[in-house]
Amino acid sequence: MSMIVNRRDLDFQLYEVLNIESLFESERYASFDRETIDEIFNGAEAIAEEVFLPFADKLDAHEPRFENGTAVSIPEVKLALDAFAEAGFFAAGFDEDIGGLQMPYVTQTAMNGMFSAANGPAYGFVMLTVAAANMLEAFGSDEQKAQFLPAMLEGRWFGTMCLSETQAGSSLSDIRTRAEPRDDGLFNISGTKMWISGGDNDVSENIVHMVLAKLPGAPAGVKGISLFIVPKFRVDASGNMAERNNIELAGLNHKMGQRGLPNTLLNFGESGESVGYLVGEPHQGLHYMFHMMNEARILVGQGAAMSGLAGYLFSLDYARNRPQGRHPQNKDPESPQIPIIEHADVRRLLLSQKASVEGSQALVFYCCVLVDRLKIEADAGEKQRLHLLLEILTPIVKSWPSEFCLEANKMAIQVLGGYGYTRDYPVERFYRDNRLNPIHEGAHGIHGIDLLGRKVAMYGGEALNILLEEIRQTIALAGDDFVAEKKALDDALNTLQVATVAALSCNDVTQRLANATLFLDACGHIVIAWLWLQQASAASAKGSGLATDDDFYTGKITAARYFFRYELPKAIPMLELVASLDRTTLDMGIGEFTGG
Amino acid sequence: MSMIVNRRDLDFQLYEVLNIESLFESERYASFDRETIDEIFNGAEAIAEEVFLPFADKLDAHEPRFENGTAVSIPEVKLALDAFAEAGFFAAGFDEDIGGLQMPYVTQTAMNGMFSAANGPAYGFVMLTVAAANMLEAFGSDEQKAQFLPAMLEGRWFGTMCLSETQAGSSLSDIRTRAEPRDDGLFNISGTKMWISGGDNDVSENIVHMVLAKLPGAPAGVKGISLFIVPKFRVDASGNMAERNNIELAGLNHKMGQRGLPNTLLNFGESGESVGYLVGEPHQGLHYMFHMMNEARILVGQGAAMSGLAGYLFSLDYARNRPQGRHPQNKDPESPQIPIIEHADVRRLLLSQKASVEGSQALVFYCCVLVDRLKIEADAGEKQRLHLLLEILTPIVKSWPSEFCLEANKMAIQVLGGYGYTRDYPVERFYRDNRLNPIHEGAHGIHGIDLLGRKVAMYGGEALNILLEEIRQTIALAGDDFVAEKKALDDALNTLQVATVAALSCNDVTQRLANATLFLDACGHIVIAWLWLQQASAASAKGSGLATDDDFYTGKITAARYFFRYELPKAIPMLELVASLDRTTLDMGIGEFTGG
Repeated sequence: MSMIVNRRDLDFQLYEVLNIESLFESERYASFDRETIDEIFNGAEAIAEEVFLPFADKLDAHEPRFENGTAVSIPEVKLALDAFAEAGFFAAGFDEDIGGLQMPYVTQTAMNGMFSAANGPAYGFVMLTVAAANMLEAFGSDEQKAQFLPAMLEGRWFGTMCLSETQAGSSLSDIRTRAEPRDDGLFNISGTKMWISGGDNDVSENIVHMVLAKLPGAPAGVKGISLFIVPKFRVDASGNMAERNNIELAGLNHKMGQRGLPNTLLNFGESGESVGYLVGEPHQGLHYMFHMMNEARILVGQGAAMSGLAGYLFSLDYARNRPQGRHPQNKDPESPQIPIIEHADVRRLLLSQKASVEGSQALVFYCCVLVDRLKIEADAGEKQRLHLLLEILTPIVKSWPSEFCLEANKMAIQVLGGYGYTRDYPVERFYRDNRLNPIHEGAHGIHGIDLLGRKVAMYGGEALNILLEEIRQTIALAGDDFVAEKKALDDALNTLQVATVAALSCNDVTQRLANATLFLDACGHIVIAWLWLQQASAASAKGSGLATDDDFYTGKITAARYFFRYELPKAIPMLELVASLDRTTLDMGIGEFTGG
Repeated sequence: MSMIVNRRDLDFQLYEVLNIESLFESERYASFDRETIDEIFNGAEAIAEEVFLPFADKLDAHEPRFENGTAVSIPEVKLALDAFAEAGFFAAGFDEDIGGLQMPYVTQTAMNGMFSAANGPAYGFVMLTVAAANMLEAFGSDEQKAQFLPAMLEGRWFGTMCLSETQAGSSLSDIRTRAEPRDDGLFNISGTKMWISGGDNDVSENIVHMVLAKLPGAPAGVKGISLFIVPKFRVDASGNMAERNNIELAGLNHKMGQRGLPNTLLNFGESGESVGYLVGEPHQGLHYMFHMMNEARILVGQGAAMSGLAGYLFSLDYARNRPQGRHPQNKDPESPQIPIIEHADVRRLLLSQKASVEGSQALVFYCCVLVDRLKIEADAGEKQRLHLLLEILTPIVKSWPSEFCLEANKMAIQVLGGYGYTRDYPVERFYRDNRLNPIHEGAHGIHGIDLLGRKVAMYGGEALNILLEEIRQTIALAGDDFVAEKKALDDALNTLQVATVAALSCNDVTQRLANATLFLDACGHIVIAWLWLQQASAASAKGSGLATDDDFYTGKITAARYFFRYELPKAIPMLELVASLDRTTLDMGIGEFTGG
């Protein structure tokens, strides 16, 4: 059993549930078929398994060191990323005309998931580089693309996103980094950026920072933020590297997890000029960032799901092999011990992990397919529909896996007991790694505000209506085996609508949003239940009669029932709190927490 | 604001809610009054704050090293424990006639909580030593007590509990360590013990291991386990140390958290004879252990609550001082940023921590008072009542804080955001430390089985009836301010009773216990809600009119309402699953988790 992927489940989700073969019928993806994708996946699985996985624990124990102003990684990181680059995977999602493979986003995400599960921090360099390159590709000038993109797509230059500053984390409107126009049309960037993952490394030849900064006289707040390319080494018009660009590594953050990926404090323009290139129009920086944010947030959800998957697979394997205890009715101490997977509570811990991990995976892939369909859809109305669906699902796909696959990792530790609490087993590392996901790319609470404060109300509630339609269609199509699940989901949708109407009718925006995080979690439970009903329906329809496949499909149906029985009911009291516009948290005085 | 204790809350819980002054009226505790206890607490707080707290982060970063067969700690550990010993605190709970202070258990636990919050792993040596000494005091012979107890009460010799082996963790009936009778009335102990906290150290002069082992021809299973004293250095009849007793440190476990407390693999009798002393009668070892287990389990709950408290206090202080963002209705980016405690979701994260931490603390102290009252109660009937109440609360006091103060630590990290994810702030350490608590002293699931499989049915359900009576009495006494809370708690009790009857009426023990963990969590929610109603009633009655005290009492009432509105409702679907005798987890085939 692989510890980084369940290929059977990938096939099920991609082909049997989401029918991604329909994507291959489009002109854009016509060069792919299932066989080609399988081969690419085989190659990726081999590299992930043989090159990324073996040093994941070593990388955690040997985080990057600050040496002579550089973040120095153990040599395995470069070897792994070179192998990834050599396979052409940095360019997987980019258009053929700029040297990419033009793979569907859903297959690219599934493929990269294997690297994420094998060695999340090492794979992190890829994720950041692809995100930066995507942004350049979308908004950069032709000259900028020619200068920077080829080396990024080849995996020789890496990328970063430089948004946060020490005084501006969740509140980007407060950034202070400045960009002064120069005579040559470029800009001198000065300021300090915090929490920059991959902000320095000794792995890539150059680093392309995508930096938010303010032009002189820019409007206050988010409307005055512009986007700049600021490379570690300057680059001439032909894309040749020149001298250092005076970006100083001011420090490394020492994290609880994700230790292998350097997280940095960077000074721009302190020891000399840091030259930057304006991307697109002035003051549009945050707009450009948000344009790319949906994909970045899908990838956070995917990262969380992959940490969850790695923990699930490891603890499942352990539970099948670790003998301990006997069945409750067996009083004979001389009978042999049984594998712990025989114990009901261990099964609950495993089934809960399966439900969260594969449910998250289903949501991530569903959103990826929306991204792909947006690229190939010709009809403007349908395109708008897909767009709104993606908009409303984005806070959920970022947040639900981050919160609940972290819980899955907690359970993986529990399955291993004391062993799981030691660094000799990887499950505690997955738990530490995954703890980041509810924090970055918008903290958990921020997404609650995004969902309840913006998304459910946008276009007169159209996005929510489209989502409800999609869910109701799945309910309508599900068979009689799922009468209880259909009813439970339908009831939950009604409760969700009541809560939404109650919240939106409250004119006090603070009160309306007081329980936004609960709303986010509850919507996530409903969405995941919906996608489990979709999986169960597909499993119910497609049983092939092969013994092992029967097991697979039965397991899918049981996991769906588990989610409906054990998890979905939790959404109801959360939504009732939202509907009641409860003010408990607001009414708590600041001095009342401790008194005295 | 102290980062390790809220003395105002201690006073409230001990004197205003639990009225521990009534204990001082007994002969046993007659030498104490509130003033004496206050002075002891002042001294303890100073040592905890000045000696234990300052090196907690260093200890985490420098775990004990394996050097020349010994676990070597940083020198601060010995200095701290020497200060603790010098204050006489090792002996705090022991009888005056053997050199103790004879402090009530509840005050001893409250006092030790400050050390636990300040530096859990360093304090761990104390907890283990006191537990071993308690067992010796209860079951050892006079000779054994004279040999071993004085040095332990002085804090010169430490103690351990040696139960687990690599193949016998949750299943103690499978231990293999053997005890061969010698001609001198002692025993040669041979075998390997795993997960032994404090199993070796360079801090104490000697270590007194309390070891479970089997005599030749002993019955199989738990009925054949005996208890032995096995010291690191042999001890003559007068208590003088002699040569090494051939206990070898075979390895240190490298843990996720609790790093400062060495956790060891020990070999007995491999390089020579390891001499042991039989405690009490043969084959009664597990019985003796269980006799002490209630107190050990209260202390696990207390440790979890103290990690939770440390995270709560730290994140509260941070939230009051960290400026970030603006109120939702404020669209002016040039207005100053507000402290994050102004944001509703941050308040929710803090209020949830307060509710879990102070609720756990209330449960711990409630159980401690039961221990104290059991020591002074003369009436046999009342004594049995107190005993049963403690029995049924024991799995809950161990488990609920372990599970939900871990969640509180997760929230403390969330309040600090990216900063909370770094090792520069202590909240990630608390989270790692606390992750142990649902694992040791009986894994979480084991306590579910204890509660639903044994405790609720014992003496014809008498223990549960007594608990329900206590809760109903609190409901009856609570005032009209709490009508909604009274009704919610009463409804929850009814749901609990329905679930209990349904479970106990199921003859298939495996099915009955399939959802025992949910039953445990739900009972915990009900018990914590009960104790919050008790606190709210006391706060409502005792408002003193001082401004800061008004804040304190109002905060208590709001936290109680928070728990009833946000947390208690979660118990209901859990109990409904128990009542439905749901078989989802049991029906999941082993091959169905992944298929293929």
